[in-house]
Amino acid sequence: MYCNAERIEEMLQNIATFTVAEDEGFTRFSYTQEDIQAKKYIIKKMKEANLKVSMDLLGNIFGRREGTEENLPPIVAGSHLDTVKNGGKYDGIAGIVAGIEALRVMEENQIKTKYPIEVVAFAEEEGGRFNSAFIGSSWFMGKIKEEALETICDHQNMSLKEAAESLNVFNEEIKRCKRKDYHIKAMIELHCEQGPILENNQKSLGLVNAIIGSSSYQVTLFGQADHSGTTPMDVRKDAFYAASKIAVELNEFTKKQEMYSVGTVGCVEVKPNVYNIVPQEVSITMDIRSMDQKVLEHIITHMKEYIEKIAIDHHIQYKIKKNHHANPVKLSNKIVDLLIKNTKKRNYNFDVMGSGAGHDTLIMAEFTDAAMIFIPSKNGRSHCPEEYSDSEHIAKGADVLLDTIIDLGEKVSS
Amino acid sequence: MYCNAERIEEMLQNIATFTVAEDEGFTRFSYTQEDIQAKKYIIKKMKEANLKVSMDLLGNIFGRREGTEENLPPIVAGSHLDTVKNGGKYDGIAGIVAGIEALRVMEENQIKTKYPIEVVAFAEEEGGRFNSAFIGSSWFMGKIKEEALETICDHQNMSLKEAAESLNVFNEEIKRCKRKDYHIKAMIELHCEQGPILENNQKSLGLVNAIIGSSSYQVTLFGQADHSGTTPMDVRKDAFYAASKIAVELNEFTKKQEMYSVGTVGCVEVKPNVYNIVPQEVSITMDIRSMDQKVLEHIITHMKEYIEKIAIDHHIQYKIKKNHHANPVKLSNKIVDLLIKNTKKRNYNFDVMGSGAGHDTLIMAEFTDAAMIFIPSKNGRSHCPEEYSDSEHIAKGADVLLDTIIDLGEKVSS
Repeated sequence: MYCNAERIEEMLQNIATFTVAEDEGFTRFSYTQEDIQAKKYIIKKMKEANLKVSMDLLGNIFGRREGTEENLPPIVAGSHLDTVKNGGKYDGIAGIVAGIEALRVMEENQIKTKYPIEVVAFAEEEGGRFNSAFIGSSWFMGKIKEEALETICDHQNMSLKEAAESLNVFNEEIKRCKRKDYHIKAMIELHCEQGPILENNQKSLGLVNAIIGSSSYQVTLFGQADHSGTTPMDVRKDAFYAASKIAVELNEFTKKQEMYSVGTVGCVEVKPNVYNIVPQEVSITMDIRSMDQKVLEHIITHMKEYIEKIAIDHHIQYKIKKNHHANPVKLSNKIVDLLIKNTKKRNYNFDVMGSGAGHDTLIMAEFTDAAMIFIPSKNGRSHCPEEYSDSEHIAKGADVLLDTIIDLGEKVSS
Repeated sequence: MYCNAERIEEMLQNIATFTVAEDEGFTRFSYTQEDIQAKKYIIKKMKEANLKVSMDLLGNIFGRREGTEENLPPIVAGSHLDTVKNGGKYDGIAGIVAGIEALRVMEENQIKTKYPIEVVAFAEEEGGRFNSAFIGSSWFMGKIKEEALETICDHQNMSLKEAAESLNVFNEEIKRCKRKDYHIKAMIELHCEQGPILENNQKSLGLVNAIIGSSSYQVTLFGQADHSGTTPMDVRKDAFYAASKIAVELNEFTKKQEMYSVGTVGCVEVKPNVYNIVPQEVSITMDIRSMDQKVLEHIITHMKEYIEKIAIDHHIQYKIKKNHHANPVKLSNKIVDLLIKNTKKRNYNFDVMGSGAGHDTLIMAEFTDAAMIFIPSKNGRSHCPEEYSDSEHIAKGADVLLDTIIDLGEKVSS
């Protein structure tokens, strides 16, 4: 019993046509015409797999295959339907398509489970339109209060509530509900890795047992603007020289850690930014992530101490602002063990690994047993038109997903 | 026989009123209404000192005190009248005012010299309007060809020639000429130091025997944009990490040199400049200066080798573009010796030093014996509203200027 790579590929290619920016990658923001077209397609495919389809207020779509017993919580598989601006064809979509394919194979093989199984297409995960990630899954799990629907706004200052009204076109076609708020037995999200590890290790699948913790900071250094010719090196207060040392240290200190950890200075602003004036004020971001809580804290503490030392050495002032913090999240050992067992049974090679990016699973894991299946990303690229995952790999991931939801759903012998 | 600090201060304060940006420092671009007002004031003060005033096509103003013999080349003292945008009250102006004051003191004391003496107020030195430095002195010395008057344009695409037509308002008041093209016996420019050395050393004057050489480069590093969470440190091609190492090395290597040398990364552009994306492309400027030609070349060679090494280590590509190069210029030993002698005679404390910035003297030194007198800059600041030089210091500089032009002009016993 295998999932079909060609059907997966066909769905991916069809969904990719629903984009505003054909020549600059794929852009499908929530509640736009492209999103509505993609949702219509997803609903059609769910119905073809004989699933019962419903949609909540914010556009999370659920395709349900009933279990043999009533009133049991479902096993949920899926991912998100939205993209970043000028993104790719796989991020998010791959997990929805794999879920539909797995349930279609169950239907074709007349496999029944005690528990219901649902595939979900989450809305608004990337935050491309509303500048805030995981909105769909957070709404689903009750983490977003109703009042927030009017306060979370897009760049044109349109509220979530108003934007989601475009979904009323579905009211006649499928069951609409405000919010699905029942318990869930387990959640499995298949997703592209968005990094190069699986490809470099020549593995077909990643079985994800943790989601990385992250802390991001804005560090502003206040030096003194001086003439670049007349100011001797030993009396300068060069904010960019100080910032460079901090960037080098963040890279080198992070590299030394034993647990998977990364540190990035991605955003840099220099004032006055003139070639012959010693930089007066420099602002850099520090994005620090680790799979291990203690290592994450160790890096943060070290960098704060290092910045203090640099500020003293260079006679400059500084300010550190925390923009964001999330602890690392351990995923469900029970589900990861099932994924390992099923991947081995299928004879697919795999790594057990952490996820370096956040996902809807981060939200789901607060409420239920959750884990992820990663598909290799070509050259590690993602969030760009070059993003690519092989549908043969996605089909293998869908096979493992299929076996695992059957295990979790408790197959009923026919 | 002393120059008068109060008269100097009065001239400086009056000229400072001719500005477009009273609340953001002092802005007086060439050929604007402010420039014409300042020129009228300078001409008035030159005439009060009984000088014969003329102005060339580009607005260099000459105030001439005849010598006792005809057909001898003049000794020239002076500096420039324009400012940078939002600049200060002293840069340039101090040298013109000191020259007028010195010649006024000669007049008051009925001192005659064999050689004629001129004070010059150069136009367009900073390049604020026409993006090219030393235009006034270059025109004076014949380094700018007539054709260039139509090709050098300001930000509104107005040519030098057209802009300078606003000076026609002076045609009736003073003698206008296309270009003064006689020989010059010597040039002395009094100017603010624009750095902190004299103030730190508690000296009243700097006697300048060299002008720093400088090379400026644009270094562009081409790495790869990757997700900051999912891309392990050891496979990244982080263009900003590489740029930071280059900035640190430029600072540290320059600091080690024995001759006065400076290195600055002043301008930085990062793409895509997003906190959670590894920087793909970073462009930095390297401004490298040294009083010594060999040291300058040594730093440049080292940095090119270092960038090559960093590019290999980080698996990135790079491009180096030279924006500008000027060799260090030795000024006239003969004039510097005279300045030392006269400063000692006056009992003013001084340093013999190089200039870390370029000046009109850089142009003049190609054609004649030239040297400079530096006045301490408070906190080393310049090109900003906080720029300040004490008129007591300027008067001391004017005293030494006075003694030295009398020496060079060969005083005639009365």
